[in-house]
Amino acid sequence: MSKEIGITVKKNENFSEWYTQVVLKAQLADYAPVKGLIVLRPYGYSIWESLKSSLDQKLKTSGHESAFLPVLIPESLLRKEASHFAGFTPEVFWVTHSGDTEIGDRLALRPTSETLAYSMYSKWIKSWRDLPLKINFWNTALRAEIKSTKPFLRTSEFLWQEGHTVHTTKDEAEEEVMTILDIYKKTIEEELAIPVITGKKSEKEKFVGAVYTTTMEAIMPDGKALQMGTSHFLGQNFSKPFDVKFLDEQNVETFAWQTSWGVSWRLIGALIMVHGDDKGLVLPPRVAPIQVVIVPIYYSASDKEVVLNKATQIKDILEKKNLRIKIDARDEFTPGYKFHDWEMKGVPLRIEIGPKDLAKGKMVLVRRDDLKKIDLTFDINMEAGIINVLNEIQKTLFENAKILLKERTKKVTDFEEFKKELEKGMFLYSPWCGDQKCEETIKESTGADIRVIPFDGKSTNSPCIICKKPSQLEVIFARGY
Amino acid sequence: MSKEIGITVKKNENFSEWYTQVVLKAQLADYAPVKGLIVLRPYGYSIWESLKSSLDQKLKTSGHESAFLPVLIPESLLRKEASHFAGFTPEVFWVTHSGDTEIGDRLALRPTSETLAYSMYSKWIKSWRDLPLKINFWNTALRAEIKSTKPFLRTSEFLWQEGHTVHTTKDEAEEEVMTILDIYKKTIEEELAIPVITGKKSEKEKFVGAVYTTTMEAIMPDGKALQMGTSHFLGQNFSKPFDVKFLDEQNVETFAWQTSWGVSWRLIGALIMVHGDDKGLVLPPRVAPIQVVIVPIYYSASDKEVVLNKATQIKDILEKKNLRIKIDARDEFTPGYKFHDWEMKGVPLRIEIGPKDLAKGKMVLVRRDDLKKIDLTFDINMEAGIINVLNEIQKTLFENAKILLKERTKKVTDFEEFKKELEKGMFLYSPWCGDQKCEETIKESTGADIRVIPFDGKSTNSPCIICKKPSQLEVIFARGY
Repeated sequence: MSKEIGITVKKNENFSEWYTQVVLKAQLADYAPVKGLIVLRPYGYSIWESLKSSLDQKLKTSGHESAFLPVLIPESLLRKEASHFAGFTPEVFWVTHSGDTEIGDRLALRPTSETLAYSMYSKWIKSWRDLPLKINFWNTALRAEIKSTKPFLRTSEFLWQEGHTVHTTKDEAEEEVMTILDIYKKTIEEELAIPVITGKKSEKEKFVGAVYTTTMEAIMPDGKALQMGTSHFLGQNFSKPFDVKFLDEQNVETFAWQTSWGVSWRLIGALIMVHGDDKGLVLPPRVAPIQVVIVPIYYSASDKEVVLNKATQIKDILEKKNLRIKIDARDEFTPGYKFHDWEMKGVPLRIEIGPKDLAKGKMVLVRRDDLKKIDLTFDINMEAGIINVLNEIQKTLFENAKILLKERTKKVTDFEEFKKELEKGMFLYSPWCGDQKCEETIKESTGADIRVIPFDGKSTNSPCIICKKPSQLEVIFARGY
Repeated sequence: MSKEIGITVKKNENFSEWYTQVVLKAQLADYAPVKGLIVLRPYGYSIWESLKSSLDQKLKTSGHESAFLPVLIPESLLRKEASHFAGFTPEVFWVTHSGDTEIGDRLALRPTSETLAYSMYSKWIKSWRDLPLKINFWNTALRAEIKSTKPFLRTSEFLWQEGHTVHTTKDEAEEEVMTILDIYKKTIEEELAIPVITGKKSEKEKFVGAVYTTTMEAIMPDGKALQMGTSHFLGQNFSKPFDVKFLDEQNVETFAWQTSWGVSWRLIGALIMVHGDDKGLVLPPRVAPIQVVIVPIYYSASDKEVVLNKATQIKDILEKKNLRIKIDARDEFTPGYKFHDWEMKGVPLRIEIGPKDLAKGKMVLVRRDDLKKIDLTFDINMEAGIINVLNEIQKTLFENAKILLKERTKKVTDFEEFKKELEKGMFLYSPWCGDQKCEETIKESTGADIRVIPFDGKSTNSPCIICKKPSQLEVIFARGY
């Protein structure tokens, strides 16, 4: 493979350029004509489809329904919850004209749909019998990014899902917030093989309009944190301005309790960063568009026929096991070229079959994660053997990501040490008094945020890392995407 | 059920009001705060999901991939194909600001994505090896509707899919146009139980920018035609301005041949109109969110337990057959109320079980299409019996729709008779010379368009219905939605 086609920089030498090359060269996405927007190409979209299907199934099983909201929200409606509006307004795209006609109440492209959803919910909900209402929307959100954009991580339009639920009691709503966070964690860890730390956001970092925000944070190989998804307890902050109320069992009119939550294609960005290597993408089998690629090797026409027949046989057998499999029979490329091509695209497992292998009644499996070769004989255990290797790859990727997290996590109680460690790119568990001033001091002097106040955070006797006042909990600081 | 909750007008007395009531009261959709926009509620969305899944599977099997395009298209790009731009510009929503910043090259919300897709394709396609490229996009399109809007039929944002393919030869592209039309026809007839007539649009009615447009037309019970989907042969009309070219096998640079095609949630509108009745929605089992509803009947607590146990048993058995089934165990409503409620929502089959039925070892099935009752014994053939009735319902709905089409189709060669018949609401097969002037004369004097030049149109010796010049083909005129 020529230099130009393959990845030309090393992951640990120029992480940002490596990332961009992988996105573009593995044909996951491409830049759209409008700055800050990307097109998701079929290979990338297929990963999104896998993720979506896995999450959608879990949401449906837990009693959520899907629906559709339009992308246009009148400015007057968006303004109804003041802090929410103030939070989003700098990045809202505004529609001012249709054809040549100016629109009076200009229209926002949805930065998120709380306001629109709840104006509808207010019409639909009459009594406790209509609750809980648990609806999820697969759509996009639009937020004009003025800072430098990056595919999947920071784009002005992004694919996501946003869930919006309504409950009769505070407890039930808070339980929903946690149910969703658990579904997210399970999906991300099992499908994407990325470990996450769950907990709450600080007051400063919570969703504008929420009572509190729960979050999942993961560490990337450059030591920066990535927010993987959030689940918000909205309390009655939106039900009051949007009039989302119900008659309870005693016929008393009551404001409802609400939640909202979302994950986006940012998860594809995490996938690339966490598992990829110098050769390109490395995909966990569960979300790989192609799980197994067969590269037939032959130099004569007679060999070609025999080898391709065998490849087709293997493909048919594996497809019956619902594996996603492809034979690369392109005549214009050498086997070596194909190996590099599929390695760059991150296909978890490659099968090589040539006349010599056939003579020995075997094929060669090559794992994408560690590039190790395994001989496998053609027998009735073949499918089980391949499925087993795929499961091993999924497991190994998750284990490696857990090692990354461990290596990049440290407990620090001293601010000088904090600054030194932060430069290395770390999740820093540090004691914090709970005062937003100390949080801001750290942000201003180091660029680090409180990423998450972990649910499993340990109580500590150490004083706050900034003001030295007593603190009860360790929180995680890091620089983030 | 109180008058207010049920449908209060008859389908054949006030069709338009009947339609709106069904949409709102069956909770398929609701009006959004912006005029011309609707929200698709979970019950309606579930129908869309069924349809989407059925179509998506057929598209994937025939070698199409899915991808994502952003909603924003720069004005300069939209202008590249002149007739296309002129066709869409009166209804384009324009984004002029992000936050407080004015955008130089203002951004259109996609009315359709030809221009954006092909600007990307031009980057992606280098040689014949990259072709055919067959990508489908599930998204929405936005076209400001100034005329009166109607849920599913005429809204300023609508759910649809748009396919965009690129081929090395004219023949291959034209074959694709027909492959897609066949897939559409099969989906609509088999899933939605609505017969369609396929053929070409006239030059006047074709897609702006296409060489020609193929279409599927169906007749609604009010005698108006509904365009159910279109598949366009674009020739090289877009590949030239958008520079979609490839090196052929002789290394010669050649402009590619293209197609585009789409169906929208308009199909849900057709479904409502064609199958619904005075009681409300009637859903074909294949797309019904709930295929079978069990209404348990009891008046004592001991009966309740026995009846609910049996209902749960039946539900479990049917769910194993992948049927979508629901038990309506709401205590606050009478069985009679529930019957009407699920009839309004169009659930294809109702099962009633009460203590008397149980004693006789049977249940009562009630078909939604003809409201006939069928006794079914609890035995090992129960599942087969129920599946059989569901298949019968699907078939009957299709047969009834074919009768509707037949009753509302007539051959006319005389313009006076044409005008009389048109008032009844008809598909009129009439001879046409092929001149756009005659087509316009009919449109201006009667409001009827050429809906379709049918593929199976008969050759005719009759002169053109307007100018009396010789004509070779009969075309279908009707008033349309």
